[in-house]
Amino acid sequence: MSTDAYVPVRTFVEQNSAGFLEDLKDWLRIPSISGDPDRVGDVRASAQWLAAKLRATGFPTVEIWETAGGAGLPAVFAEWPSGDPQAPTVAVYGHHDVQPVTPLELWETQPFDPSVRDGKLYARGASDDKGQIFFHVLGLRAHLAATGRTAPAVNLKLIVEGEEESGSPNFAQLLRERADRLACDVVVVSDTGMWDRDTPSTVTGMRGLIAAQIDLHGPSGDVHSGSFGGAISNPLTELVRLLAQLHDENRHIALPGFYDGIVALTDTERRLFAELPFDEAAWLRTAKSRAAVGEAGYTTLERVWARPTAEINGIWGGHTGPGQKTIVPSEAHAKLSFRLVAGQDPAQVRKALELWLAERIPSWLEYEVEFEGDGVRPCLTPLDHPALNSVTRALGRAFADDPDGEPRQILYTREGGSGPEADLQEVLGAPVLFLGVALPEDGWHAPNEKMDIAGLLRGAEAAAYLWEDLAGNK
Amino acid sequence: MSTDAYVPVRTFVEQNSAGFLEDLKDWLRIPSISGDPDRVGDVRASAQWLAAKLRATGFPTVEIWETAGGAGLPAVFAEWPSGDPQAPTVAVYGHHDVQPVTPLELWETQPFDPSVRDGKLYARGASDDKGQIFFHVLGLRAHLAATGRTAPAVNLKLIVEGEEESGSPNFAQLLRERADRLACDVVVVSDTGMWDRDTPSTVTGMRGLIAAQIDLHGPSGDVHSGSFGGAISNPLTELVRLLAQLHDENRHIALPGFYDGIVALTDTERRLFAELPFDEAAWLRTAKSRAAVGEAGYTTLERVWARPTAEINGIWGGHTGPGQKTIVPSEAHAKLSFRLVAGQDPAQVRKALELWLAERIPSWLEYEVEFEGDGVRPCLTPLDHPALNSVTRALGRAFADDPDGEPRQILYTREGGSGPEADLQEVLGAPVLFLGVALPEDGWHAPNEKMDIAGLLRGAEAAAYLWEDLAGNK
Repeated sequence: MSTDAYVPVRTFVEQNSAGFLEDLKDWLRIPSISGDPDRVGDVRASAQWLAAKLRATGFPTVEIWETAGGAGLPAVFAEWPSGDPQAPTVAVYGHHDVQPVTPLELWETQPFDPSVRDGKLYARGASDDKGQIFFHVLGLRAHLAATGRTAPAVNLKLIVEGEEESGSPNFAQLLRERADRLACDVVVVSDTGMWDRDTPSTVTGMRGLIAAQIDLHGPSGDVHSGSFGGAISNPLTELVRLLAQLHDENRHIALPGFYDGIVALTDTERRLFAELPFDEAAWLRTAKSRAAVGEAGYTTLERVWARPTAEINGIWGGHTGPGQKTIVPSEAHAKLSFRLVAGQDPAQVRKALELWLAERIPSWLEYEVEFEGDGVRPCLTPLDHPALNSVTRALGRAFADDPDGEPRQILYTREGGSGPEADLQEVLGAPVLFLGVALPEDGWHAPNEKMDIAGLLRGAEAAAYLWEDLAGNK
Repeated sequence: MSTDAYVPVRTFVEQNSAGFLEDLKDWLRIPSISGDPDRVGDVRASAQWLAAKLRATGFPTVEIWETAGGAGLPAVFAEWPSGDPQAPTVAVYGHHDVQPVTPLELWETQPFDPSVRDGKLYARGASDDKGQIFFHVLGLRAHLAATGRTAPAVNLKLIVEGEEESGSPNFAQLLRERADRLACDVVVVSDTGMWDRDTPSTVTGMRGLIAAQIDLHGPSGDVHSGSFGGAISNPLTELVRLLAQLHDENRHIALPGFYDGIVALTDTERRLFAELPFDEAAWLRTAKSRAAVGEAGYTTLERVWARPTAEINGIWGGHTGPGQKTIVPSEAHAKLSFRLVAGQDPAQVRKALELWLAERIPSWLEYEVEFEGDGVRPCLTPLDHPALNSVTRALGRAFADDPDGEPRQILYTREGGSGPEADLQEVLGAPVLFLGVALPEDGWHAPNEKMDIAGLLRGAEAAAYLWEDLAGNK
């Protein structure tokens, strides 16, 4: 296929960038904070705005999907069939809700009054995630303009959530209810970033999560440590003795079977991680920490991306106010969470923790363990997956000086965090790919969130190349 | 010396019990709650009431002693020299302030409206400690009446504190400032109880105390456990790993040198403890616990009376509210206290803890340890101390059917708690004896505090016999 007759992707993107930015600013003016009950109407308006824009772009099917739970924070679904019976089906995932904006006094310009400075667009949601959803609209138009098509080369679906910044409480259920409508061969998540400005990269996996609270019950009330101390069980002492066993001396996690079935890092993955220009001193500054400390035998990046963890997120019991109260306290509590990697199942880790607690908590103490939901699964796409190669080629073209010349090298990262992406993989049975162009300095969830406009346009380009590539036209 | 011409102690006590009780009720009507700033005037009135009563009893010297700190909760000092240059000097310690009375609705009669039911006097302070101070007034009168003396057989001093229920914050300083006035050969503390109604006993020691707060500083702010978990140090994990080492698998305390110099239990002490009718099931009910758990090799009574302890009184850090917050928290805190036994010095335990922390807290964590004051020393009187034998003989006579016949057997207990008594031993350089007749069911610090009137009169008798005995007249 010759593209001589058509406007090349990059040219189209450049020619249409001004209008694209004005549209995006319109959307960013809607304060769609899902965590603020007073902003429900704005989240709904945000969904309506996106739906209208998708219809105007040409999507034949655009729907507002209410979620369970009655929070009134709907998702937007859109679908544009290719018309080619051989075309693969792609579902793009993102979200249109945004984080709260406090502390407002730290913003240089108002969070919902988008402002461009030094080639960067400042607004809440500029990169997380409205900007990264909206580049798909421009990318799709560029794809059509560059290929002369009247429909995309892939069957394109968009699912844009309105509850992500509130923990996606109803997303898994929505997925299961609408699994037939969302059926696809590949999921493309646009809600992540790149290694840095000079190192384009794509995410290949995310960690899962299972969280629990443990409550130990000692004496039925606080008792005097002079009268009883040393002769009854102190639940705080039992708690620290228990939790000290979570990790061994190498900081491996001690739950029996915890590591069973884990997809090990390949030599290639370790080598590619090591190629990333990792600055430990800078990383420690963002970690607000003085030392990199973790599981023996792994690098810092391997630890946060590819190894499971057990963290104590909170602990409390007894007298925690000023001064001293010489008691044997009645209760001891801890909140734990485990980050999981490919090959681990939150339900199995839950069972392992329950068994571990049952074996270790002394028989004379009553206790409960309560899990926070069913947990979040990990997800991982192998580096040799063909669809992943399409993503790296598309990004490589978008970030190259000449999109038709030698593509830029794209490195691989992972996300240490956890999100609904793994539900997409699980429910839809499709690999999850990540097309995200945000940068670490973009200030997600922080004041002065921003998006590099040049990067945003690279994202649009990459999307355009990706649809061609996935359809088999490289 | 013949006592034929004089009224025997028991007869005198019985004959004067009605008036004694009416006087005591007067005193109990003064709500001398030292912990309530609105009751400062009542604490002062209580001191004045006692001072007047002691003057009326014949003490030639009675003084109100203000304490440092400006709380306005004075002590009462009284002195009555024997006149005999060979007479030993005794200082009686107690307190005239009382605990708060909440919850008031649980009192069957008003706490400051003394009421007699079934031979028991109900009022706040009836046993802790006004009743037990006031039996000395009757006891002294009986001693004089029974011996025909115009001054006691011992040089008698009374020091009655007004801040004990507020933790005696200024008592050690008062002792040091007035050490010359309080100089004595023996201290008699009347602020404790007996094993039970059928088992008269005397306390031979109290545990000491040193308390500290430990603060560990991890990341300079909470950080996301997805982004950083597993690769930086979690201060809660470090805290539990640290505190789990406080005790070894036998629940011995692991601070190096902690047990050095401890006065070991003698075989006699262990045998006499074992003779006490200890009901573990009943004890566990008061301990609100399901199992007796403690240091290997010791009984429950040995653990609470004669062995040092390390307790975690409180612990906190990270997210302690509802739901889950997947953070690596910035801080971890714990409050610890150590009960100490004879041979231990709070200052040395403090040093041992500081060293232990310095050796164990990872170098990448900043931390502080702050001690609550200088701690409280333990005290212990050996069972073969002559003055202790005077106490057991005096109690044995008072609790015998015939005070001149075979004395009742007196067993030995200890107090697991800590108090200013050890300061008396330390500052005054005198052994501390305990002449207390309260019972475990008297409800100290609880609603419906009471004192068995027959027991109170036995206390008065015992005091009368004790002054004779200490003076060498058995």
